[in-house]
Amino acid sequence: METIKIGLLGLGTVGGGTATVLLRNVEEIARRTGCKIVVDMAAALEPDRARELGLTEARVTANAEEVVNDDACQVIVELIGGYEPARTLVLQAIANGKHVVTANKALIAMYGQEIFKAAQEKKVIVAYEAAVAGGIPIIKTIREGLSANKIQWVAGIINGTGNFILTEMRDRGRDFDEVLKEAQALGYAEADPTFDIEGIDAAHKLTILASISFGIPLQFDACYTEGISKVKQEDVAYAGELGYRIKHLGIARYSGDGIEMRVHPTLIPEKRLIANVDGVMNAVLVMADAAGPTLYYGAGAGDEPTASAVIADIIHVVRGCRLGSSSENSIPALGFQEDSISCMPILPMAEIKTSYYLRMLAADRPGVMADVTAILGHAGISIEAMLQKDPVDEQQAQIIILTHRIKEQQMDQAIKEIEALDSITGEVTRIRMEPLG
Amino acid sequence: METIKIGLLGLGTVGGGTATVLLRNVEEIARRTGCKIVVDMAAALEPDRARELGLTEARVTANAEEVVNDDACQVIVELIGGYEPARTLVLQAIANGKHVVTANKALIAMYGQEIFKAAQEKKVIVAYEAAVAGGIPIIKTIREGLSANKIQWVAGIINGTGNFILTEMRDRGRDFDEVLKEAQALGYAEADPTFDIEGIDAAHKLTILASISFGIPLQFDACYTEGISKVKQEDVAYAGELGYRIKHLGIARYSGDGIEMRVHPTLIPEKRLIANVDGVMNAVLVMADAAGPTLYYGAGAGDEPTASAVIADIIHVVRGCRLGSSSENSIPALGFQEDSISCMPILPMAEIKTSYYLRMLAADRPGVMADVTAILGHAGISIEAMLQKDPVDEQQAQIIILTHRIKEQQMDQAIKEIEALDSITGEVTRIRMEPLG
Repeated sequence: METIKIGLLGLGTVGGGTATVLLRNVEEIARRTGCKIVVDMAAALEPDRARELGLTEARVTANAEEVVNDDACQVIVELIGGYEPARTLVLQAIANGKHVVTANKALIAMYGQEIFKAAQEKKVIVAYEAAVAGGIPIIKTIREGLSANKIQWVAGIINGTGNFILTEMRDRGRDFDEVLKEAQALGYAEADPTFDIEGIDAAHKLTILASISFGIPLQFDACYTEGISKVKQEDVAYAGELGYRIKHLGIARYSGDGIEMRVHPTLIPEKRLIANVDGVMNAVLVMADAAGPTLYYGAGAGDEPTASAVIADIIHVVRGCRLGSSSENSIPALGFQEDSISCMPILPMAEIKTSYYLRMLAADRPGVMADVTAILGHAGISIEAMLQKDPVDEQQAQIIILTHRIKEQQMDQAIKEIEALDSITGEVTRIRMEPLG
Repeated sequence: METIKIGLLGLGTVGGGTATVLLRNVEEIARRTGCKIVVDMAAALEPDRARELGLTEARVTANAEEVVNDDACQVIVELIGGYEPARTLVLQAIANGKHVVTANKALIAMYGQEIFKAAQEKKVIVAYEAAVAGGIPIIKTIREGLSANKIQWVAGIINGTGNFILTEMRDRGRDFDEVLKEAQALGYAEADPTFDIEGIDAAHKLTILASISFGIPLQFDACYTEGISKVKQEDVAYAGELGYRIKHLGIARYSGDGIEMRVHPTLIPEKRLIANVDGVMNAVLVMADAAGPTLYYGAGAGDEPTASAVIADIIHVVRGCRLGSSSENSIPALGFQEDSISCMPILPMAEIKTSYYLRMLAADRPGVMADVTAILGHAGISIEAMLQKDPVDEQQAQIIILTHRIKEQQMDQAIKEIEALDSITGEVTRIRMEPLG
C-alpha cells in the first residue's frame, strides 16, 4: 500500500487532535483512500508532545521551516494559527511544490488571495475546510454540494464561545460577565477572549463564507463586526418574551446593490431550527435559489472535530493525487474560476436593510409613546410589536419596540431623534433582527 | 467557453427542475466551472414539455435509448425512476463510455453493485447525490466531508411525506388517514402512497447511507422496514406528554457484531434538533468518532431541491473532466476502495438493542401493574417511566411504559407474556425509542 507522508506544523489542540485521529483511524482511512497516511515530521515547541501523542516514528523539530523544506513531506498541514509565521511557512511550502492543508481562518481571510495565487501558479492545492465551523464540512458543501445554485444568503453561528455565553444567559438568566468567566474556566474562551466575543473570529470565517458563496475577493477589512459584550440579560429575556432568541450571527447576503457582510448580535424567531442551536455548537444556514434553505450543524471547534476537517482535506489531496495524472485541484480555491471573481461592492452598514429590536428607558407619563411612534412614523419605520414593561422606578418604564425592515441610516437618524426627546433617558439599545425565512 | 452537452432522460418533476435550474443559472454555473452546460437532448413522453420548460434548442425524443446512444451527449442524466428501463439505460450509457448522473434511489439501492462495477471497468463516473435527501448534499458529506471518521451511526428523516403526516398528527391532533388524504391532495403523497408510508422509499435511501457510512455492499433486502400507517394519534400525544416526538427514522448503526439497518417509527427526545425537523423537510444526523454529531437539514424532495443535487453531480463530473487528464472518479462509488468493502453481517432485528415505548389496555384493578412489571423484571428489562392514563371505560385503563435498552428478542418474548395476561386486552403497542445522544 502506498504511504503518503505529511508534515505537521503545530502540535497544539488541533495538531494533537489531527495526530490522534490519523493514528486511530489509519485503517479506516486506508479503506477509503487505498493509502496509508502517516505523520512523517512534526514541528512542535515541546518535543515530548509528539511522543505523548503516540507519534513514535515521526521526526520532530522545533523549527517549522525544516518541515516545510523537507523533501519527504508531500503535504504540509499548518496548524499554528495567526498571521505570521503561518503565512511565510505556507508560501514557502507552496514554493516547494507541496500541497497545503490549513485550519487557519485568520490567514485565509487576510492573505487568501496571495496564497491561492501562489498555489495556482505551482499547481498545488491549498485546502482550508477546517478554517470555518470545525467539524461541519461547510466549505465543501458551498463550493461543491450547492454548486448548482445562486446563493442568496448565508447566516451562521460560527463562534462556539459566543454561543455558549448567549445560551447560558438565556437558559439560566445569568449576566454576560459571569458567564464569560465560567467559559474561561471551562477552557471554551481564551484568557484574552476579544477575538471570540468581539466577533473577530466570526468575521474571519464569514469573510471566507461570503467569498465562496458569491465569488467575491476575500475582504476581511470590509466585514462589519460587532461583538456580544454589550448584550444585556434583560434584552435576552425580553427577546424571549417576544418569541425570539439572540444569537451572534455572521450574515452574508447578496442584494441587488452589493453584498452585505456583517457579524452582530441578532434576534431570530425561536421557531427556526438555528435558533435552537445551543451551547458551543455551530450551525450555518444557507439560502440557495434551487435547494432552498439547508442547515449544517455540528461542533465548530475542539481538537477532534477540527481534525476531522483537516484530515478530510488531506484525503481530498490524496484522492486527487492518486489518479496520478494531475496534482491540480479541480475545484477553484474560492469555488469560482479566477476570471469570474466578481467586483460587487460590500455595502456599508448605512445601506443595509433589516428589522430592529429597540429598548429605551422612558418617562412613565402620557404622550411619550406618541412622541416615539411619531418619530418612527415620520422615518417610514413600521412597528411590528411594542411592549411596555412595568416601571423600573416611580418615574420610568422600559419600552421595547420591534420594527419592520428599514435601511440602517434611517434607523440611525430615528434613534438620534428619539434619544433627543426629554422623556427618554440615556441611549436607545438597538439589536438587529432577521426572520431567516 | 467550452460547452458540455448532457442528455436528460425524463422531463417529469425532477427532470423539469433540472432543465429549469440549468437554464436559469447557466451563468453562475459557468462562473464556477468555466463551462457552459447545456441540455443537448432530452427523452420525454410529451414532446411539448421540453418547449414549455424553455429547452428550445434541445433535441427531443420519446425514445430514451436514442439519448443514451447519441454521440454528442457526454453525460447522461437518468431521471426516470424505478428499476426498469432505468437500469438497462444506465448500463447502456456506461457501455457507451458516458458518465451517468441519477436521482434514482431504488436503482442504486437494488442494482448499485452491478452499475458501479460496470462504471469502474469503463472508467466513467456514476454519481447519485440526488438519490438521498434531495437538496441536502449528504452523499458528498459522508463520502468526503467526514472521510477522516469511523462513522458510528446515521439516523435520518428521509421521507418528507411521512414526516409531514407525523407533524400534522402532532401539531393538530389529527388522525393518520385524514392527514394522508390531505397529503395526497397537496401532491406530497402519491396516489399509491405505499412506498412513502410503508418505509420502502426510506429503506432505499437508508441502504445507500449504510453502504457509504460503513463500506458495506448495498443490501436493500436486508433492511428492516416498518411503516407509519399503524401509528395512532394517541401514541403521538402520549409520546409528547413524556417529552418525545415520534419520527419515521432510518437508522444504520455499527455495533461490534454487525450492522443495524432499520426503518421504523421511533420516539426521540424533543430536545434533539432532529426532533424539531417538521413538515416535508428532511434531516440526517451522523455520529462520527472524530467530528462527533453533525446534522444536515433541508428539502428532501421537490423539483428544484432535487435538481440542485443532480446538477452538483454534473458539475463534479465536469470539473473532473476539465483536468483533461483522467475521467476516472477519484472518489470510489461507495466511498471505500473496492477491495475494502466489508462483509460485516446485517443484524436481524431480534439481535438489535434499543429502548421501547409500550402501550397496553389493562383491566383497571389492583395487581395488574405488578403482573406487567414482574414480566419485564424477569426479562431483565428496566423501566424508565410509566404512565397510567384515565380509564377509557369503567373497567379499563391505558398503561404506557418506557423501557431502557434491551435486545429485541427479549422484548418480543416479554410482550407475548404480557399479552397472555387475563388483565390485558388486545395487543401491546410497541414503538422503538432512540436517545440519539
